Amino acid sequence: MRVHNFSAGPAVLPEEVLKNIQENLVDYKGFGLSVMEMSHRSAEYDEIIVGAKTRMKKIMGLGDDYEVLFLQGGASTQFLMIPLNFCPDDKTANYIDTGTWATKALKEAAKIGKKMHIVASSKDKNYTYIPKNWELAENPAYLHITTNNTIRGTEWKTDPVVPEGTFLFADMSSDILSKPMNFEKYDIIYGGAQKNIGPAGATFVIIRKSIIEKINPNLASMLDYNTHISKGSMFNTPPAFSIYVIGEVLKWVEEKGGLEVREKFNIEKANYLYNIFDNSDYYRGTVVKEDRSLMNIPFRLPSEELEKKFIAEAKAKGMIGLKGHRSVGGCRASVYNSLPMKAVQDLAQFMINFEKKN
Amino acid sequence: MRVHNFSAGPAVLPEEVLKNIQENLVDYKGFGLSVMEMSHRSAEYDEIIVGAKTRMKKIMGLGDDYEVLFLQGGASTQFLMIPLNFCPDDKTANYIDTGTWATKALKEAAKIGKKMHIVASSKDKNYTYIPKNWELAENPAYLHITTNNTIRGTEWKTDPVVPEGTFLFADMSSDILSKPMNFEKYDIIYGGAQKNIGPAGATFVIIRKSIIEKINPNLASMLDYNTHISKGSMFNTPPAFSIYVIGEVLKWVEEKGGLEVREKFNIEKANYLYNIFDNSDYYRGTVVKEDRSLMNIPFRLPSEELEKKFIAEAKAKGMIGLKGHRSVGGCRASVYNSLPMKAVQDLAQFMINFEKKN
Repeated sequence: MRVHNFSAGPAVLPEEVLKNIQENLVDYKGFGLSVMEMSHRSAEYDEIIVGAKTRMKKIMGLGDDYEVLFLQGGASTQFLMIPLNFCPDDKTANYIDTGTWATKALKEAAKIGKKMHIVASSKDKNYTYIPKNWELAENPAYLHITTNNTIRGTEWKTDPVVPEGTFLFADMSSDILSKPMNFEKYDIIYGGAQKNIGPAGATFVIIRKSIIEKINPNLASMLDYNTHISKGSMFNTPPAFSIYVIGEVLKWVEEKGGLEVREKFNIEKANYLYNIFDNSDYYRGTVVKEDRSLMNIPFRLPSEELEKKFIAEAKAKGMIGLKGHRSVGGCRASVYNSLPMKAVQDLAQFMINFEKKN
Repeated sequence: MRVHNFSAGPAVLPEEVLKNIQENLVDYKGFGLSVMEMSHRSAEYDEIIVGAKTRMKKIMGLGDDYEVLFLQGGASTQFLMIPLNFCPDDKTANYIDTGTWATKALKEAAKIGKKMHIVASSKDKNYTYIPKNWELAENPAYLHITTNNTIRGTEWKTDPVVPEGTFLFADMSSDILSKPMNFEKYDIIYGGAQKNIGPAGATFVIIRKSIIEKINPNLASMLDYNTHISKGSMFNTPPAFSIYVIGEVLKWVEEKGGLEVREKFNIEKANYLYNIFDNSDYYRGTVVKEDRSLMNIPFRLPSEELEKKFIAEAKAKGMIGLKGHRSVGGCRASVYNSLPMKAVQDLAQFMINFEKKN
């Protein structure tokens, strides 16, 4: 029996997608080999990777002015590539610090010696909200945000506005494709695949083609967006199987009705839990109401002891991944795109019963 | 029916390993989820990654003085990390140029501004041999070699000797675990997994722990070996599924008797083809006899037209991946660890028949 998987990532994938991958694992569509064994230069694999790129743009409503890359190295490598490529020495890299991953991104810019400015931070209140006001540094290269904060459970509900000529970059690792967004306001959208769109080991980078001319011309090959764009994500061997799984998940998103349907479904799921917080003093959400994430829902119980008991009893009932990130403690339910409604319904019922008994 | 897969990489995997992965794809060992869905911090996944690391060292006969990393970014990222980490400004990076990938490695060192010296090259004869004599530059940081040249089909049969204090680094992407080697002579052994040990998307880096103290202290997090060593390959989310498949392939290597058995098997396979070259004027091996690779076997036919016909007819008979790399043309049979004997026997028979008819 399948568990209810509330892990923050790697995370749950649609069961029907997994079953299809399973069926094709040893012999993909009768070609006589696994996708894992296919030359990335073969016609069969080309169809897979081009299909995934095309579908990604279609679902997001983006046109030919964007390029989709599937790279390796995770969002952590993007933390480095973004300032390397797009912050010249006479400009300043601007960051909004919404905790953990946002903090890691800005630290990397500073670490490689770029002029880095934190324009706003919610550190003062333990990253429990999204900053609403800020001013960019003079001569800004770009503004970088993290649209959903996996560990803290906050999410941007509006898009920041930047002056013309300043790029807007976003790490969307944990909310990509969870709802319609104004994707075309962003110059780079990137993230690890392992939360909403696939397994670990592939990084999506969606880049507005016109900004390519601004890339620092003196970069190591693997750190230069030009390298990957000019070779269609095939400068070196791509993470071929992960990209295949992403493609299958994208088909699933499309077949289920796209991002409008995802949003409706995700709101319904999240509300099962948020409604409990709003009607109980036992379970306490850790985030201000207006900035609550649709994807990652952290909460506390009256004591750490009860939290431990809660997590253990849930696990025994087949609900896993409910432990909060080790840096913040408590509990967290990640309720990504692929998590079935039933999982959240069962969790909500369990929470109500647990409160009664404890 | 499974094809005979002679691709240079991604390449053939053992059918029994694939079947086992297939069986466990939706529900790994009854845990109720796919390995693709597992938190990389879970006890279940920890067993997988630690098992793969331990098995890798055991098969290679390496002890606690080595660390095994599974990273992302391919050998191409290692081309960058090696000089960044291990070539200080007052020293010289030494390379032996045996073609294509070796050339890419040395170019990357030069590109990032390191003092780089090509101590020997077989470019004079189109990379058809392994250079036997060389002298390192003064004050050498390290010597870098490519033990097997996937595109050219040459392979080192001895280990280069370097003076004490000079590191020896090797890209072993295409011959790792194909035979017993003096692994302990090397300070870093690295490569993409997608030829002999797994699918694309994971890079193995086996590093002698004592050299860590020499690492450049001012590096971006993801480019610093210290980052990955101190976090056990989990600084960021690892390519979890690829590592799992690697672990399963390593079990298979072990169960089949380890590297001595692999070598015997691989020699027998390669000889089916090399014997044809040695007894025919029709098929012409492109490499000097003494440096012939056990893994990648390039060859020519009397004309390009016949080569085209050969590749097409082979494909029609279920033998794929026989086209030479686009940079060199001709034909190439990659006969990695997992390729069954039957595949080479069938290819040899096909070659004999093709010669008779054409």
